[in-house]
Amino acid sequence: MAPEMSRPGGRTARVRSAVLAAAGDALIELGLPGLDLAELARRAGVGKTTVYRRWGSVPAVLEDLVTDMIETSAPRADTGSLDGDLLANAELVRSTLADPRQGPLLTALVCAAADDAGTARALRGFYDARTAVWEPCVTDAVARGELPAGTEPAAVVRAVSAPLYHQLLTRGTRPDTADAHRAAAATAAAARAGVFVSAGARRTS
Amino acid sequence: MAPEMSRPGGRTARVRSAVLAAAGDALIELGLPGLDLAELARRAGVGKTTVYRRWGSVPAVLEDLVTDMIETSAPRADTGSLDGDLLANAELVRSTLADPRQGPLLTALVCAAADDAGTARALRGFYDARTAVWEPCVTDAVARGELPAGTEPAAVVRAVSAPLYHQLLTRGTRPDTADAHRAAAATAAAARAGVFVSAGARRTS
Repeated sequence: MAPEMSRPGGRTARVRSAVLAAAGDALIELGLPGLDLAELARRAGVGKTTVYRRWGSVPAVLEDLVTDMIETSAPRADTGSLDGDLLANAELVRSTLADPRQGPLLTALVCAAADDAGTARALRGFYDARTAVWEPCVTDAVARGELPAGTEPAAVVRAVSAPLYHQLLTRGTRPDTADAHRAAAATAAAARAGVFVSAGARRTS
Repeated sequence: MAPEMSRPGGRTARVRSAVLAAAGDALIELGLPGLDLAELARRAGVGKTTVYRRWGSVPAVLEDLVTDMIETSAPRADTGSLDGDLLANAELVRSTLADPRQGPLLTALVCAAADDAGTARALRGFYDARTAVWEPCVTDAVARGELPAGTEPAAVVRAVSAPLYHQLLTRGTRPDTADAHRAAAATAAAARAGVFVSAGARRTS
């Protein structure tokens, strides 16, 4: 789908969409040091002045790219069981990381974040938002008696993603369905064993 | 410690040590696109001809840097229990990632690997070597009856590292001792639950 067709809402929205798509492409190809606003304007087919006026800097474009990723992300699953919900989460993360555009884009953002504090803050915001969307899977599991009281929802959700990101980033291999199953099962087993109960909850129980 | 004092063995070893230290520094500061052999020679205080003759390319220097990391890495722990060994492994990974030089260097290598196949191969070799060093902790635990037969040693060892790398790379926060404890405990609980038993072992049991 061409960028200018990917979202409704007139010229401003079309410009944003084109520039963010160009920023993702350029980040994957060139990395943060290779990005500049004139190049993004050229790739997006948008006037330089528009890009300078609207965003002002490359990190501001990347922050907006991350905001767009948050806005367009999938909702949580609600399968009725912890195992089902964590597997759905693992499968979503796996399919995102294995996607030929999303995987390299997330890798490039992780690397840009290592070099730029603004991008790091934005990317942390993305992961915090994604984690928050899935936290009710854990609180529901606690309410159903599947997990011990005091289990930290964010810790459980992050534990599902961790081995899938680790595999992609340190070994360079895209996680497959078996990896997603294992990530979900390992997290569920650890959560049932009480590993993700907060230190505070332990002390007061 | 100055690079020229960090290893014994004459001029060849001193040159290698200085160039690899310079490569690590430059990779952290500039990333892969900013590296060239002339700059590494300048930083290392070594003749350009020597660097060109010995390594020939930036990726070759990075591959040698990774080889050096493998050669100088710590041995496995042998505490007599799975929990103790996994905690020692988690603590080693944590202290490496939290180290003000090693953490940024590993991050920079992960990002260089995303852009260069040779660096990716070398880095995968590093992680495979480190995993292999710690695998006996798992086979010993299976032999002691602490873990089910058919548990995949490499999967268990990688599971310890995953949340610590994930935290550093996606949230930009250095893992602390509590994170290391949780990484070890989560992995041990999942391993005891049979999550890391290979599919082949499951079928034949």
